[in-house]
Amino acid sequence: MDSLLNSCKLAQKELLKLSNENRNKCLENISKALKDNIKFILEENEKDINNAKANGISSVMVDRLKLDEKRLNNIADSVIDVMNLKDYIGEVIEEFNPENGLNIKKIRVPFGVICAIFESRPNVSVDITALTIKTANACVLKGGKEAINTNKALVKVMRNAICDIVNPDIITLIESTDRKTTDELITKKEYIDLLIPRGSKRLINYIVENSKVPYIETGAGNCTLYVHEDAKLHMALNVCINAKHQRPSVCNAIENIIVDKKIAANFLPELKQAFETLTPSVEIRGDKEVQKIIDCKPATDEDYYTEYNDYIVSVKIVDGVDSAIEFINEHSTKHSEAIITEDMDAVNKFFTEVDSACLYHNASTRFTDGGEFGFGAEIGISTTKLHARGPMGLREITTYKYIISGNGSVRK
Amino acid sequence: MDSLLNSCKLAQKELLKLSNENRNKCLENISKALKDNIKFILEENEKDINNAKANGISSVMVDRLKLDEKRLNNIADSVIDVMNLKDYIGEVIEEFNPENGLNIKKIRVPFGVICAIFESRPNVSVDITALTIKTANACVLKGGKEAINTNKALVKVMRNAICDIVNPDIITLIESTDRKTTDELITKKEYIDLLIPRGSKRLINYIVENSKVPYIETGAGNCTLYVHEDAKLHMALNVCINAKHQRPSVCNAIENIIVDKKIAANFLPELKQAFETLTPSVEIRGDKEVQKIIDCKPATDEDYYTEYNDYIVSVKIVDGVDSAIEFINEHSTKHSEAIITEDMDAVNKFFTEVDSACLYHNASTRFTDGGEFGFGAEIGISTTKLHARGPMGLREITTYKYIISGNGSVRK
Repeated sequence: MDSLLNSCKLAQKELLKLSNENRNKCLENISKALKDNIKFILEENEKDINNAKANGISSVMVDRLKLDEKRLNNIADSVIDVMNLKDYIGEVIEEFNPENGLNIKKIRVPFGVICAIFESRPNVSVDITALTIKTANACVLKGGKEAINTNKALVKVMRNAICDIVNPDIITLIESTDRKTTDELITKKEYIDLLIPRGSKRLINYIVENSKVPYIETGAGNCTLYVHEDAKLHMALNVCINAKHQRPSVCNAIENIIVDKKIAANFLPELKQAFETLTPSVEIRGDKEVQKIIDCKPATDEDYYTEYNDYIVSVKIVDGVDSAIEFINEHSTKHSEAIITEDMDAVNKFFTEVDSACLYHNASTRFTDGGEFGFGAEIGISTTKLHARGPMGLREITTYKYIISGNGSVRK
Repeated sequence: MDSLLNSCKLAQKELLKLSNENRNKCLENISKALKDNIKFILEENEKDINNAKANGISSVMVDRLKLDEKRLNNIADSVIDVMNLKDYIGEVIEEFNPENGLNIKKIRVPFGVICAIFESRPNVSVDITALTIKTANACVLKGGKEAINTNKALVKVMRNAICDIVNPDIITLIESTDRKTTDELITKKEYIDLLIPRGSKRLINYIVENSKVPYIETGAGNCTLYVHEDAKLHMALNVCINAKHQRPSVCNAIENIIVDKKIAANFLPELKQAFETLTPSVEIRGDKEVQKIIDCKPATDEDYYTEYNDYIVSVKIVDGVDSAIEFINEHSTKHSEAIITEDMDAVNKFFTEVDSACLYHNASTRFTDGGEFGFGAEIGISTTKLHARGPMGLREITTYKYIISGNGSVRK
C-alpha cells in the first residue's frame, strides 16, 4: 500500500509541471480511449453484473452498476466537458504589498493526492479522474467490490491513454476492496492530502469517525421545506411536488415539510390530495396536530431525522418563523432548506439564522447541484463547514499557497 | 459538558443577530473591563505564578505565564485593534445568475462555535475571544492548568463586560484542565464547528490523531532556507541570520540551511563565522560533506526533521534546485521555506514545486505572520491544506453559505 501511494504522490509532482494544454490532452486521450475500448469495458462490466445477480443483489443496485454503450459514451463525453472548463491552477487569487515592502501573491494550487472512496456506480472512477487531472491533482480510487472488474478495466484504459504524456500513477486504483484496506487508507496522512467519501451514510459516518486524513463530508441530505403563513399556496404546492417527487433518491430532495399553523388547515388538505394523485404517490407522515387536519400515518420523532430517499415525507405544523428555524437547525444535516413566502423579513431571518449550506427562497432544494450552480462539474455536495460548503466543483478541490518576493528582506 | 457546550451554541444564535456595531461594542467593553480590573486579574495571575514556582516550572515558562500592568494593557489594546478591523460577516463573496433563472449569492458567515485548546500563555484566551466575537463566532476555551486562575479571571471579566449586550455564554471556559476533558471535548461534533489547537507539537499531534471535530492544524514549523548557486552571498548571510537568530523560539524561524554545492566552499565558512560571533551564538550541525568544509557538530538524519526552537541549525549541501526541492518536500512541515538567488527560473521552479504554505524569494521566513501579511490579527499559522493555509486572520475563521432566490422555481 505504501509503495502504491508513494508512486502516486511522486507522479503528482510530474503532473504539477504539465501545462493546462497537456492536462487537457490527457483528458482528450482518456475520452477517446474509453470510446475505443467500449467492447473490453462492457465485457468486464458484464462480469460484475453476473456476480451481482449471482449474489442476489437488488435490481436497483444492478441497474446502478450496469454500463451500456450509451452510458459509456456519456461518461466519455463528460470527460471532454471537464476538459473545456476553466483552468484554475496558478490563478492569482489576491496580490498585496504590505508595509514591510514584500510582494505577496496568493495563488491557487492543487491539493496533491486526492483519495476517493466510493460505492457501486462505476462512472465515479472516471468522473473523479477527470476532475483531479484538470486540477493537477493525482487520485487514489477505491471503489466497491461489486464494481471491481469494471473499475479495473476503466482505470487500465485511462492509464494507457495518458502514459505517453505523464506518469500514469497519477491514477491509482486500490484493487483490494475490503474494509481492512479502507482502514489502512484513511491513516495515510503522509501520502493523501484530501479524502472524499462518496456513497452511503454508513460509509461517510465511518470515515468521519475514523479518518486521520483530512476529509470533506458529502451527501447526507435531510432537507426541509417551510411553508410560511404568507406563502402563495399554489407556488408552495408546486415546489413541494418538485422537491419531493422529481427524484426522491437524491440528497437534495426534501424529507420534511413544515407548515405554519395559520395556513395549515388550508394547505395540508391540498398537499395530501396532490401527493395522493401523483404517480407514484407520496406517503405523508404527520404528528398529532397534522392528523387533526388530514388523515395520514403517524410520524415519530425519529421520522423528522430520517432521510427517506423514497416517496415518503414527514409533515409538522410550526408556529412562526422562529420555531421553523429551530426545527430545521435541530433536524437538518446542513445541506439545503427552503422557505416559501412573500414576506421579506421572514426570508432575511431564515437566510441569517438557518445553518445550512444552501438556503432557498421560493425555489426547490433540487437546485443544489454543481451543474445547476454553473460549476460545470461536481465532485460532491459538502455538508461540512470547513473548506467547501454545498456543491463542490473544480475550484473546491484546489487549495492555495503564498509566494512572496523580497530583495534581501529581513524582519525588523 | 454537554450542557455547557449547548449553552454556548445557543448563545451564538443570539450573537448572529447582532450588528457589527454591537459586536464592536462588546469588544470595546471587554477592553475597558480588562483595564478596570487589572488589580483582580494580576492577583489571580499571581496564584498561577506561585503554583508554577512551587511546581518547579522553568523560568521561561513562568515568564510566559506572567502578566503585569504593561502586558495586560497591551492585551486590552489589542482587543481594540481587532475591533477596528474590517467586518467580514455578511459579505457577498460572489453573486451569479445561472441559466435556470435563480439568483445565487455566496455570503460569508461565521463557523458557529470555535473551540481553542491552548497551553500556558494567558493572552490566548483574550485574543481568541476578540477574534471570534468580531466574526460572530462563539468560543469555547480550554487553557492549560498552569494558567487556570488567570484564565478564570480573564473570562469572568470579559463575560461581565458583555452581558448587557448578548448572552455571555458566547465565551465559555472549560474549567477542568485534564486530558480526559480534552478527550471528551474533541468528540463533540454536534456542538463545536471548528477546533483550533494552539501549543506544542505534542498537543497538536494528539488532536490530529484523535479529534472527531474538524480542526485546523497550526504551528509546527520545520522551515528551510536554500542558498542557490546564483545567490548574492551577502544577502544570503543576512537573511540566514534574521531567519535563524532573531527569534529562534517561533515557528517561522528556520531550522535547516541547505547550500548549493557550487558555492558551499565559499559560503559555509562565512556562515560559520557569522553564527559564531552572534550573541548568543548559533550552533551548526552538518553532515559529512559539510564537515569537509567547516568544523562543526555532526548532523544525524533526525536533525533535518527537527524543529529546534533554539540557537541550533542543521546544514546540508545539495546539488541544484531539484535536489533542494526534494530535500524540502521530504523534511518540511509545510510551513515556510525560502530560496536566495538571482536566477528567476530557479525561483519559478521553487515556487511551483515546493509544497509549503509560504514560499519566499530573497526574504526571511520570519515574515510568515498575520500582522506582517497585513491581516491585522492572527489566530495561528495553518500547516494543513484544507480551508486555510499559512497565517490565519479574521477571514480564515469564517465560512460561507449560498442564499438562493427564485420565483416558485422548480428543477426541470
